[in-house]
Amino acid sequence: MTETSRPDDAFHVFDTTLRDGAQREGINLTVSDKLAIARHLDEFGVGFIEGGWPGANPRDTEFFARAREEIDFRHAQLVAFGATRRAGGSAADDPQVKALLDSGAPVITLVAKAHDRHVELALRTTLDENLEMIRDTVAHLRAAGRRVFVDCEHFFDGYRANPEYAKAVVRTASEAGADVVVLCDTNGGLLPAQIHAVVATVLADTGARLGIHAQDDTGCAVANTLAAVDAGATHVQCTANGYGERVGNANLFPVVAALEIKYGKRVLPEGRLREMTRISHAIAEVVNLTPSTHQPYVGLSAFAHKAGLHASAIKVDPDLYQHIDPEQVGNTMRMLVSDMAGRASVELKGKELGIDLGGDRELVGRVVERVKERELRGYTYEAADASFELLLRAEAGTLPVYFQVDSWRAITEDRPDGSHANEATVKLVAKGEVIHAAGEGNGPVNALDRALRAGLERIYPELAKIGLVDYKVRILEGRSGTDSTTRVLISTSDGRTEWSTVGVADNVIAASWQALSDAYTYGLLRAGVEPA
Amino acid sequence: MTETSRPDDAFHVFDTTLRDGAQREGINLTVSDKLAIARHLDEFGVGFIEGGWPGANPRDTEFFARAREEIDFRHAQLVAFGATRRAGGSAADDPQVKALLDSGAPVITLVAKAHDRHVELALRTTLDENLEMIRDTVAHLRAAGRRVFVDCEHFFDGYRANPEYAKAVVRTASEAGADVVVLCDTNGGLLPAQIHAVVATVLADTGARLGIHAQDDTGCAVANTLAAVDAGATHVQCTANGYGERVGNANLFPVVAALEIKYGKRVLPEGRLREMTRISHAIAEVVNLTPSTHQPYVGLSAFAHKAGLHASAIKVDPDLYQHIDPEQVGNTMRMLVSDMAGRASVELKGKELGIDLGGDRELVGRVVERVKERELRGYTYEAADASFELLLRAEAGTLPVYFQVDSWRAITEDRPDGSHANEATVKLVAKGEVIHAAGEGNGPVNALDRALRAGLERIYPELAKIGLVDYKVRILEGRSGTDSTTRVLISTSDGRTEWSTVGVADNVIAASWQALSDAYTYGLLRAGVEPA
Repeated sequence: MTETSRPDDAFHVFDTTLRDGAQREGINLTVSDKLAIARHLDEFGVGFIEGGWPGANPRDTEFFARAREEIDFRHAQLVAFGATRRAGGSAADDPQVKALLDSGAPVITLVAKAHDRHVELALRTTLDENLEMIRDTVAHLRAAGRRVFVDCEHFFDGYRANPEYAKAVVRTASEAGADVVVLCDTNGGLLPAQIHAVVATVLADTGARLGIHAQDDTGCAVANTLAAVDAGATHVQCTANGYGERVGNANLFPVVAALEIKYGKRVLPEGRLREMTRISHAIAEVVNLTPSTHQPYVGLSAFAHKAGLHASAIKVDPDLYQHIDPEQVGNTMRMLVSDMAGRASVELKGKELGIDLGGDRELVGRVVERVKERELRGYTYEAADASFELLLRAEAGTLPVYFQVDSWRAITEDRPDGSHANEATVKLVAKGEVIHAAGEGNGPVNALDRALRAGLERIYPELAKIGLVDYKVRILEGRSGTDSTTRVLISTSDGRTEWSTVGVADNVIAASWQALSDAYTYGLLRAGVEPA
Repeated sequence: MTETSRPDDAFHVFDTTLRDGAQREGINLTVSDKLAIARHLDEFGVGFIEGGWPGANPRDTEFFARAREEIDFRHAQLVAFGATRRAGGSAADDPQVKALLDSGAPVITLVAKAHDRHVELALRTTLDENLEMIRDTVAHLRAAGRRVFVDCEHFFDGYRANPEYAKAVVRTASEAGADVVVLCDTNGGLLPAQIHAVVATVLADTGARLGIHAQDDTGCAVANTLAAVDAGATHVQCTANGYGERVGNANLFPVVAALEIKYGKRVLPEGRLREMTRISHAIAEVVNLTPSTHQPYVGLSAFAHKAGLHASAIKVDPDLYQHIDPEQVGNTMRMLVSDMAGRASVELKGKELGIDLGGDRELVGRVVERVKERELRGYTYEAADASFELLLRAEAGTLPVYFQVDSWRAITEDRPDGSHANEATVKLVAKGEVIHAAGEGNGPVNALDRALRAGLERIYPELAKIGLVDYKVRILEGRSGTDSTTRVLISTSDGRTEWSTVGVADNVIAASWQALSDAYTYGLLRAGVEPA
């Protein structure tokens, strides 16, 4: 841990993806997942990573033990989350509090009740005993040498119900030694103007250092976080990609981007903002959720333009339709090929691919027509650059024919033991040779892929370096059950770059076959292979 | 059109899904799609529906013609979008302006440049001629009896560059007869505090009626829209589900929900807010995008709880973890069955399904174990209630066995003409009878479905009423190409209700088979059929 590379303590970027973010529907993190995410967050440069609740959850206990051994954090400090001690006991004797210390985390976030009704209903204790629980627990952890932050759960609802009690909670935590008292909009029901007013008043009345924890139930979590900063909060709690319970938490990426770019505030180590898009996608991959294409700053679509009108304007000046240079956040501007865009975008896209179409109006017209006709049938070239380039080259007459397919067949059969047999055969012609090949796999598409490779690799040994890295299926007309059109998108890699291809058919196997066949053709083209 | 049911003109909810929303990557609307969406928006009760740019786009011209014939709007007025006349011409002679009138739309939105640099760079005319283009075009449309709104493109960037000119544009439009002048954050780069300051100043300095059009590039479009309303704007431009170029536009649903619930402002006809969730999903279906599960208010997850801690608290008081009653927006609270949740949520879920598990601690423990083990293998019961109920009944020993599968087989083969043959066979035992059935379909899963039905329908004629309505495929480990686990979710309907089932396997066909088999078992259970 190099002390100098850690961001200034005057402003805290606090990440709770591993604790609060993990509450999102559909997320289920293993300890290895958590370690991988912690590494990404540290690389991004957040100041604090809340790792979970050691003691309450065996996976979290293990995470803290392994993180201490396995990760050498460059920027972040690890934070353990837990609750104040039980009513009527003492912090020194509380096993839950002890587990927080045992985690070895240098920073501890304590959740405390700040809403009078919740103290009575959920904790079943008195308002005074709740304050004593906070005081005792904070003081105990401070005496053990830990830094302490206090999360005031339901703070804003509590403040509305009983402002004096809510402020007493803030004062108690601060006076007992908590460095930051975090005001939580736990139900996520507030709007920025309300957050601003309460944070400003609490800051003036208590003098405590304040933080903000916003949930996105009104769709305003990012704005709510910034409103609290405007009112004087100096600690923001966020999650990567906005993961979190219900709608989610304040999204770390647009909050940090707004602070750095719009406020001109340095909250990350130098140069880290440019890694944001990559890190956002890497974390999505670990939690196994498709990255949201429409996420601000980091989404695939965040700087994508499809309108014909805009495309023409962008040829004049790229800044006309983008609020920042996408490179600032590691993203790129994309021109989308779509029938709405027309000639200007096909030309720009051609240029992006290194094919100058400027001179050939008739060819551009043919490509536009072909794209229109295929988009009507369900193809999309927005996410399949390689298939678009093949289409473009086919129209321009510069697409080599590496192989011709005669027929293929795939069989899936269940076995008495519950396992499955998948077998495929393909018959094709390459370099004048008729090839008949077979393959087995864990599914019919995998079997077809192996049969195709088996047939082609002998003729084109370059294919050995090429492998599938992603496979997506989209059912296009979801309301008709299995009677629907299927679109398959495949990403393929040669170890250095990736390309995407598309196939559309009335069934998943035929659609996959098209995308596979485009993927290998493009791979051979890219490798500079000459057909016979 | 019933005048009385239209919302008060003092505040405008203006929807531009059909124009600006259609710029979203992945959306490609037919005229029928546009008509269907317009019907949904009218039912929701927005005041204005911007249908497109007649004249500029043949599809939009056709939309206005057909909407006039085919839709009897109850709440909304149809709006045509277009530009001010060409530089140096006259509005009366401008074919683009004429097309706006020809559309028959009672309201016209004109887009005008408000940024001095854009007037010079993109329009290539003088600042004065731009003002004259606005004046002339607004006056011409007003003289023809149309209501006119003016969208000031890039207003906020323009205001920063040249505030006097930006305000001159607002004054010119208003004085020429525009009812509302809409300030557009076209690049979407602003934050709420900035929007608030500019709207307040422009309102004070010009006295024009102002509207707001926000894009979501900073993740603040909803908050930006509300900030403008706080500053005095009385017209909000939004799109359903936030569809729009790049990241998207201000999302109609959270904006309207905030205005109605948080501001206590009536902006929709009575009772319409309760339709919001259904209408959001219906529109997603028309544009053929999966509804975002994490959308505020209307997402499937918006009121879903999985944390064990929360689940226990919710047993005490449901309002502890939700900011509004989900019924206000037509959504429902859901308890998620997940290994994070434990006993409390399994019990609550059982209750939701009408199975009281309160008394049997050992059974609850077994169900929790079974769910954990299956979730590790990739199953998810969060979106497959029917499969969860079957699992629960299997553990409780109350699941009837309607049929037993001996074996199945699916073959897909391409034909020389490029079409495909799909054939499946199944062998099963039902009511003591051995059944061997075959089916053909447009894909291997469809063929299996037909074979299974063919085999079972003779024994269980109740199945005739049951049909698949949705089919989703998810590849669970996307980084390993076709070598990955596949999860299939199927929705089935008996014409009255729908249920969802899940299957997980190493290939799509085997996973589909499991989900199909659960779907039919649940259908028979639901129909009250007794097995032999």
